[in-house]
Amino acid sequence: MRKENRENNGLRPISIIPDYIIHPEGSVLITVGNTKVICNASIEDRVPPFMRGQQKGWITAEYAMLPRATAQRNIRESSKGKVSGRTMEIQRLIGRALRSVVNLDVIGERTVWVDCDVIQADGGTRTASITGAFVAVVLAFGKLLENKVIDKMPVLDYLAATSVGILADGTPILDLDYEEDSQANVDMNIVMTGSGKYVEIQGTGEEATFTPEELQTMLQLANSGIKEIIEVQKSALGPLAARIGELREENS
Amino acid sequence: MRKENRENNGLRPISIIPDYIIHPEGSVLITVGNTKVICNASIEDRVPPFMRGQQKGWITAEYAMLPRATAQRNIRESSKGKVSGRTMEIQRLIGRALRSVVNLDVIGERTVWVDCDVIQADGGTRTASITGAFVAVVLAFGKLLENKVIDKMPVLDYLAATSVGILADGTPILDLDYEEDSQANVDMNIVMTGSGKYVEIQGTGEEATFTPEELQTMLQLANSGIKEIIEVQKSALGPLAARIGELREENS
Amino acid sequence: MRKENRENNGLRPISIIPDYIIHPEGSVLITVGNTKVICNASIEDRVPPFMRGQQKGWITAEYAMLPRATAQRNIRESSKGKVSGRTMEIQRLIGRALRSVVNLDVIGERTVWVDCDVIQADGGTRTASITGAFVAVVLAFGKLLENKVIDKMPVLDYLAATSVGILADGTPILDLDYEEDSQANVDMNIVMTGSGKYVEIQGTGEEATFTPEELQTMLQLANSGIKEIIEVQKSALGPLAARIGELREENS
Amino acid sequence: MRKENRENNGLRPISIIPDYIIHPEGSVLITVGNTKVICNASIEDRVPPFMRGQQKGWITAEYAMLPRATAQRNIRESSKGKVSGRTMEIQRLIGRALRSVVNLDVIGERTVWVDCDVIQADGGTRTASITGAFVAVVLAFGKLLENKVIDKMPVLDYLAATSVGILADGTPILDLDYEEDSQANVDMNIVMTGSGKYVEIQGTGEEATFTPEELQTMLQLANSGIKEIIEVQKSALGPLAARIGELREENS
Amino acid sequence: MRKENRENNGLRPISIIPDYIIHPEGSVLITVGNTKVICNASIEDRVPPFMRGQQKGWITAEYAMLPRATAQRNIRESSKGKVSGRTMEIQRLIGRALRSVVNLDVIGERTVWVDCDVIQADGGTRTASITGAFVAVVLAFGKLLENKVIDKMPVLDYLAATSVGILADGTPILDLDYEEDSQANVDMNIVMTGSGKYVEIQGTGEEATFTPEELQTMLQLANSGIKEIIEVQKSALGPLAARIGELREENS
Amino acid sequence: MRKENRENNGLRPISIIPDYIIHPEGSVLITVGNTKVICNASIEDRVPPFMRGQQKGWITAEYAMLPRATAQRNIRESSKGKVSGRTMEIQRLIGRALRSVVNLDVIGERTVWVDCDVIQADGGTRTASITGAFVAVVLAFGKLLENKVIDKMPVLDYLAATSVGILADGTPILDLDYEEDSQANVDMNIVMTGSGKYVEIQGTGEEATFTPEELQTMLQLANSGIKEIIEVQKSALGPLAARIGELREENS
Repeated sequence: MRKENRENNGLRPISIIPDYIIHPEGSVLITVGNTKVICNASIEDRVPPFMRGQQKGWITAEYAMLPRATAQRNIRESSKGKVSGRTMEIQRLIGRALRSVVNLDVIGERTVWVDCDVIQADGGTRTASITGAFVAVVLAFGKLLENKVIDKMPVLDYLAATSVGILADGTPILDLDYEEDSQANVDMNIVMTGSGKYVEIQGTGEEATFTPEELQTMLQLANSGIKEIIEVQKSALGPLAARIGELREENS
Repeated sequence: MRKENRENNGLRPISIIPDYIIHPEGSVLITVGNTKVICNASIEDRVPPFMRGQQKGWITAEYAMLPRATAQRNIRESSKGKVSGRTMEIQRLIGRALRSVVNLDVIGERTVWVDCDVIQADGGTRTASITGAFVAVVLAFGKLLENKVIDKMPVLDYLAATSVGILADGTPILDLDYEEDSQANVDMNIVMTGSGKYVEIQGTGEEATFTPEELQTMLQLANSGIKEIIEVQKSALGPLAARIGELREENS
Repeated sequence: MRKENRENNGLRPISIIPDYIIHPEGSVLITVGNTKVICNASIEDRVPPFMRGQQKGWITAEYAMLPRATAQRNIRESSKGKVSGRTMEIQRLIGRALRSVVNLDVIGERTVWVDCDVIQADGGTRTASITGAFVAVVLAFGKLLENKVIDKMPVLDYLAATSVGILADGTPILDLDYEEDSQANVDMNIVMTGSGKYVEIQGTGEEATFTPEELQTMLQLANSGIKEIIEVQKSALGPLAARIGELREENS
Repeated sequence: MRKENRENNGLRPISIIPDYIIHPEGSVLITVGNTKVICNASIEDRVPPFMRGQQKGWITAEYAMLPRATAQRNIRESSKGKVSGRTMEIQRLIGRALRSVVNLDVIGERTVWVDCDVIQADGGTRTASITGAFVAVVLAFGKLLENKVIDKMPVLDYLAATSVGILADGTPILDLDYEEDSQANVDMNIVMTGSGKYVEIQGTGEEATFTPEELQTMLQLANSGIKEIIEVQKSALGPLAARIGELREENS
Repeated sequence: MRKENRENNGLRPISIIPDYIIHPEGSVLITVGNTKVICNASIEDRVPPFMRGQQKGWITAEYAMLPRATAQRNIRESSKGKVSGRTMEIQRLIGRALRSVVNLDVIGERTVWVDCDVIQADGGTRTASITGAFVAVVLAFGKLLENKVIDKMPVLDYLAATSVGILADGTPILDLDYEEDSQANVDMNIVMTGSGKYVEIQGTGEEATFTPEELQTMLQLANSGIKEIIEVQKSALGPLAARIGELREENS
Repeated sequence: MRKENRENNGLRPISIIPDYIIHPEGSVLITVGNTKVICNASIEDRVPPFMRGQQKGWITAEYAMLPRATAQRNIRESSKGKVSGRTMEIQRLIGRALRSVVNLDVIGERTVWVDCDVIQADGGTRTASITGAFVAVVLAFGKLLENKVIDKMPVLDYLAATSVGILADGTPILDLDYEEDSQANVDMNIVMTGSGKYVEIQGTGEEATFTPEELQTMLQLANSGIKEIIEVQKSALGPLAARIGELREENS
């Protein structure tokens, strides 16, 4: 059995506290089991050099862990003087995923900086970051709407992420904690929209392989998990929840 | 008048939540007004190379801010690939201060890593870090006592810190928030022990100077403030509070 | 129509020249259309620190492009003083993929260093790297067999990779060149074994999303493409081709 | 007794050679006992980005040691690729101290770069740097006066620094050499102006603490020492000495 | 005897394949014995900051080795995060040599980036790089002539390089391979023009010295070798060969 | 005419002050015209990893300039976080030159660290560094002889360096100052031994070329200059001068 009698297709308890830090335009603390991530979204009134003059915005993400977010203390990346490959990979993933559901033309030449800082880790930090960052970004756009900087919510659809995997005994499971992740033969991160489309699929058989049938089972587990997670996002967003997709509807 | 009708010799509300993060040996969240710092203390069973073979321990500190701990987003030091002068200065200060009240011979060849991560900043982050880190370190030693790795609390006295300053109009004030700090002519950080001895005095007249009389007034303000702060540390520590100084008493 | 009348499910011409560079234990030049990658495999008689004492080997990969491999000159990563996120992501992918089909226990405490250096790029450099690196690694193990350092080929199965994608008009295509890749809504890299199992699936809808049906179509395209590629690997390997999987058969 | 029969309240022999290096606008070699520092002040006709458009100047300092300035050879910071925390702390201190006695509005949008390079070290290198840098900066402003770039000396008051400390046996001493510094329980650096005001007070009880009474004793020792040092600065400055403070007098 | 019965004054077989990589304006693969270098020349329509506004161009070179170009695998400089002293020295040499035979005024504010990437090394990589880079640069200028960006070939004379040395037994030899280079007492690289003038002479007696007579012998060997090499450059250049020096003749 | 009526074949005034800094085993201040370099030699009782177990020593050199050694302030290499190509080239040159006249077998597994720090520059800093470093190294070996760590002076011959060049008007000159160096068409650094053998010849025609005849003229100028410089080294060395070459004589 999984810890705390969790079903193989069950998520860990999730909560999303909005407006967690006072300074950023959008901020949440997301908790998924024992994984806790502060997601802050900051709006900057300019875009990076490669985007200038295109009349559209950009979303970029940074991800980090506090040194004792993990059971063993990690050396701080600022002390090492460089960011690890794993960190860069996660940062690129978060940024790409968020950009896929935002109409960047609508926000003008602005950059949304998303900072995901893991203060406590127990597996699934990258998927929790995406799920939490989505809410932080919507809150930040809410601030722009409030200040009449923009007049439509530029977010086209919900976006959430979770992990699925296959244990050494062949059991497929949803939302792996750190211990499960260490033991799994296959580990897959899925990012999906509210309308059930894929944004990212990253499946890895580390020193192992997986069959086409196992792939299908994992995709189904992820599908049902992500629907549940989006409900938690909706209640964290309150009245702003209703404005997701308003631009899409208008265009259709 | 100061914000929220604070007296010139008044502290902002302080709270210290013990056992904040699950993985570290000692962990607190300290809140001083709007300043919030996670202080984690980790015990490693070896010392840095320059200390080996001396049969004594070491305490070292790292300090960082989340990018949006501040009103303007700061570039992450891991992205810049180097740690700023300000960060290094604060790290050295925290480490030195903690070492002054710990009997390093008693803890054996172990390193205490103290991580102070500012998640929200509003002035006084270095003094809040020292005050919180002290509690995290005592909690970590409590874990060693519990596991019978050591048999006496190696902490000789309480340790806390605060800031004092002189505003442009000459008013001396205690515990400056960010706005006050920006306007002050003189800024002084004082670290003291429970028995009223100095550990560090750092007084700076940035583009200004201060008289010997002003120095004395600031020292008195700090003195009374630090006494109050130590009471908050005591209640956060619970039963462990009684063990501070047991080694010193024994030796006397 | 695609360039040179290629079908949507057609691969570009592939060639793999074995023993391309004289110094490495295994070396190939792989050409996929206009993409050319030198893949060298070096055997080192020790493993990285985190693997020591485990009586097993390790495979690690590095990937780079010559500055003028591309239409625009890129700044050399050694001049920038750091490796980009994209490079790290690809390096981690190549290493993970190769480790999934090698029995690391059999090679003893040795590291296989795989260097994939793109001398000319036209899309699909990471999948060409995996396909070529697989052959270089088998050649290097062939050298160990020849010198009687090991007595069984430690490679359990073939391994090859290709890309699939969906153009803006919804057409699914196999093996994208650079121009197609720039225009595709969805880009997916698939790494598979000779027996048709997945090793890695990385599907990304950059500023776009894709449906479950589109995913299935892409998986089928990849499947047929990879079978063809493995035939090219076999002829490049010559007599060594027969020894792939000998360890697996024995164990079954 | 202290080396060479020095009294507890006695300074080591000090000399300041003006115009030591030919290229800089201001240059001195300061010798304090066996400590020797080349202090160069360079005038640049622009300010750093964060100061632009404010119609005022800036003073910034860099500090370094030759590798064999010390008894053991130190690794060159350029070889390590980064500047140590200690170096940064000293650089920030020197810059802050100099800015406190200069009217930055008067010098226009110019930067004064102060370089303090320790060629031989025997304790007190940071205080010797401040004392010497002050003279180098006045000499550089002298050059600007001579060339009629400015018409008043922008330096408001003298500025000098020294160290005080308390030995393990409780004896308070002035101007510690390296050996004394290594043995002291408390180490304090004081920067003061010609009119007896404090600019910086940095007192540290490394693995020790000090009482309020000890603090007062050290402040008095520093006070008398700094008066003597300022006399040496005056004679090094020659006719320029008379112009220090002319701006202040005018304003009063 | 030297390998493959080479005479002491004999070169190894040389070939230069023009238009080797498709993207760069000029590209060759030069082979000298077992040494193989890809030399690419790229034209950028601007000059580095220190050259701006001078109405003239610039030529800069970068040099690197693939990790397994050598018998032992080298750590990639991008992984080390810095470029070695040897690499920088070679880059500076290649750039300086090429600039000595090009009229930089004629090419306007353009930079020629020369990339020399050694894919297989067996001694003489820096001289092969210069010889090959010269041809790549002429090819790139040929592209500019073709596109009527310039109307005269800006290359004033041929440029080629080789090495000479003295073996431990005193024998002077031309064009050292790696093994000979390791055994030589003196190693000298000579860069000359088509008209027999020197551009660079770099003679080094590593842990040895050489007499004035030995110097003269080596200079003569180099002279005859370089004449032969220039013939190979001419045939690689085809019709463009005739245009080398047209500007010089015109001016005379 | 040259400055201060110097002849074309005349050196600038040279002085070498021995025992300049108190801590290093060997230390000099060398002055050549307005160029001033502190050369320190430190003995370390171990060799770098690549030399271990060979029962012989090593000599390595570092070179740096103070930021205001030059007319324009240079950015400190420690601030830039990396050492320039020019610096590395000079460091390698100094180390190679010194090793050519020292019997490394005699000094045992020791490293001689040579630090050349230019405090004032006016051309010829690399040749002054070699000339001064030679004396510092002999002084350091003198210390080892005195302490009976070694019993023969391991230095086989004198070593000195100077520059020669050809001005734009074709005049060959000896020992170029900064202004002459900037105007010269050809610049050549020569390192020779006391017995008139070459150690290094580095001749560069930056954006120019030079004829075989010009080369011979420059070699002769250097030859006579170096003889004069060695006389200055002899008088700086005092009684130690007599011991140079004692090992060589013995072996012959």
